[in-house]
Amino acid sequence: MPQHAAADVFAWIDDEERARERAGLVRSLRPRPADSPLLDLASNDYLGLSRHPETVSGAQEAAARWGGGATGSRLVTGTTELHAELERELAAFCGFEAALVLSSGYAANLAAVTALSGHGALVVSDAGNHASIVDGCRLSRAGTAVVPHRDPETARKTLAGHDGRALLVTDSVFSVDGDAAPLAAYAEACRAEGAALVVDDAHGLGVLGEGGRGALHAAGLAGAPGVVATLTLSKSLGSQGGAVLGPAKVIRHLVNTARTFIFDTGLAPAAAGAALAALRLLAREPERADRAREVAAALYGRLTASGLTAARPDAAVVSVRAPSASAALRWAADCREAGLSVGCFRPPSVPDGISRLRLTARADLTGDEITRAVETILATAPAGATDGGRA
Amino acid sequence: MPQHAAADVFAWIDDEERARERAGLVRSLRPRPADSPLLDLASNDYLGLSRHPETVSGAQEAAARWGGGATGSRLVTGTTELHAELERELAAFCGFEAALVLSSGYAANLAAVTALSGHGALVVSDAGNHASIVDGCRLSRAGTAVVPHRDPETARKTLAGHDGRALLVTDSVFSVDGDAAPLAAYAEACRAEGAALVVDDAHGLGVLGEGGRGALHAAGLAGAPGVVATLTLSKSLGSQGGAVLGPAKVIRHLVNTARTFIFDTGLAPAAAGAALAALRLLAREPERADRAREVAAALYGRLTASGLTAARPDAAVVSVRAPSASAALRWAADCREAGLSVGCFRPPSVPDGISRLRLTARADLTGDEITRAVETILATAPAGATDGGRA
Repeated sequence: MPQHAAADVFAWIDDEERARERAGLVRSLRPRPADSPLLDLASNDYLGLSRHPETVSGAQEAAARWGGGATGSRLVTGTTELHAELERELAAFCGFEAALVLSSGYAANLAAVTALSGHGALVVSDAGNHASIVDGCRLSRAGTAVVPHRDPETARKTLAGHDGRALLVTDSVFSVDGDAAPLAAYAEACRAEGAALVVDDAHGLGVLGEGGRGALHAAGLAGAPGVVATLTLSKSLGSQGGAVLGPAKVIRHLVNTARTFIFDTGLAPAAAGAALAALRLLAREPERADRAREVAAALYGRLTASGLTAARPDAAVVSVRAPSASAALRWAADCREAGLSVGCFRPPSVPDGISRLRLTARADLTGDEITRAVETILATAPAGATDGGRA
Repeated sequence: MPQHAAADVFAWIDDEERARERAGLVRSLRPRPADSPLLDLASNDYLGLSRHPETVSGAQEAAARWGGGATGSRLVTGTTELHAELERELAAFCGFEAALVLSSGYAANLAAVTALSGHGALVVSDAGNHASIVDGCRLSRAGTAVVPHRDPETARKTLAGHDGRALLVTDSVFSVDGDAAPLAAYAEACRAEGAALVVDDAHGLGVLGEGGRGALHAAGLAGAPGVVATLTLSKSLGSQGGAVLGPAKVIRHLVNTARTFIFDTGLAPAAAGAALAALRLLAREPERADRAREVAAALYGRLTASGLTAARPDAAVVSVRAPSASAALRWAADCREAGLSVGCFRPPSVPDGISRLRLTARADLTGDEITRAVETILATAPAGATDGGRA
């Protein structure tokens, strides 16, 4: 333990901590028990597959067969036949030539954005993009142009002003409001200007497209030559990890150049096995994807009919506006006290400073559970929450 | 599938691919079977715990109890009581006040370096540091000064020239050559100049210090107020994931500010369960750490006595120099053909352009296996490999 008399080099952290307390923006971890009695509308387990017996068996069998870890970089000892199998089936399901699995969706976005841009390139990035895309831009050594949220015309003009390698990067479904990107128009802008399109389909896989094949499949863009998808295995597939999907040569390029692939330990076999089992389940039961969207529509319809302000959901996220960060926090806490777990997004996790309750429309919610969720949210709504009507 | 007639936006990838082929630097994935007959000296499974029955059970029980994934950010639904238990036991084992578990060691380094520096700060980084530390520096918005490998005096002078928040970041054991950082001197430089010290103990945990408590514990620096450690759960602990260890307020600061923590799905329960089981096993059987170092010393001694050039191992990595990248690749392939799996580090994974075979001194290698490994490496050594003697 400490034997050093020097001044505390982390004294500045005390100041920042006090400032967060004054602003009501302190976040802390709340470990949940395995048998939580809360109704979950906060997770990203869109299809309710994380605790499905087949997903759990997939994890367990993989651990038994391959061990607790991948034991090294995918380039050394970290690629098992299980990883290769998962990559083949993911690519085939989503309609791409090839896939590469990484240890997280965050790592997948860092890999795709950095490896496909580089010095002298231009990355055009939608203002609503996820933090991992933003960090990919920062790491890329490329020029980055942030364009207004869902604005393909500005994106096209920005691409037109650049001579050389360029790519446009966007979420397919934005995490905060659950709204969808204009993928067809973004793709058209890329085709017109000779740019690549990189789409993070973290919130689309399992929810959008035929049988949950994702937003790019729905838009007829899966497998197109200039299109790359990134995915996460931790949402609809109930596991952990991320993936990049695209032309085989793009995947080979990532294997050779993407730092978050080369210098990271491979995804744990249990996570690969769980994701593969969930993927096979989804392929067998495509109605799960439709059901997630139906639940979202039901939640949105009933909450806005009662005067709450929400963005119309394009996938399985329903985002309800709160009057302030502290009101959002209190609202979420009141819901929890009433047995309902909801997400609470506050600055700096929201791009526009507006705090929200974030509800996940899980495919396995029953009608009774939806009713209970709606009633709880309405009963605990703060003053000011019902002022605005539909967004 | 493609219906677009535009020119291939990824044509530049073909050029880069051909250039890599000409240079003999193409990397490709080689999926391994579960029952590989190869003797493994290539993984980072230093203690041989990845396939230990207790590690596997830890993964399986966690999947059964908690499901295939954490289902969300640690700040939303992604923190389970299992994550909290792992954090408590990791911190206690290594001698720190608190710990925070992330989805990879890469994410842990990005989190620690970015959250503890920021605009106006200075990050002093050892030239041999891992890619994830380098990327943390690039993401940090701080000024970065790369100092020569293992050079505390230059580090001190560089810190002295900066007014304001500063930190010195280093691997404890460098991945390529397996050499150790001068931690005591680095810590003294930090104390003298009022800087924080961040040490990536990925290759020290489980190998160095009393019972494998790590390099900082060995140096008497564990729990010191200005010292932060990052770890991986994917090497000695045979699982996946990473962690940051330090004063409780530093951990709270990361929870509130580190983007790779806030915006990432929590570590899968199976990975947390496997790591916790391996940690408890190590605490019960501390001799595993000593054995890993003994195996490394034996490998080094016998290979260099036969004329190969190797860096003296400070932990469980023995790095043997090869005359060229193509010779290294051929050497590793010949070893594999003879039943031995060894790592092969080539540009751009090596800081100095010198290619190496990288051998892992697993604690569970038997005397016969060590002999077989040494004989195979010597029998397959290329011309020029035995010119240099000891490094």
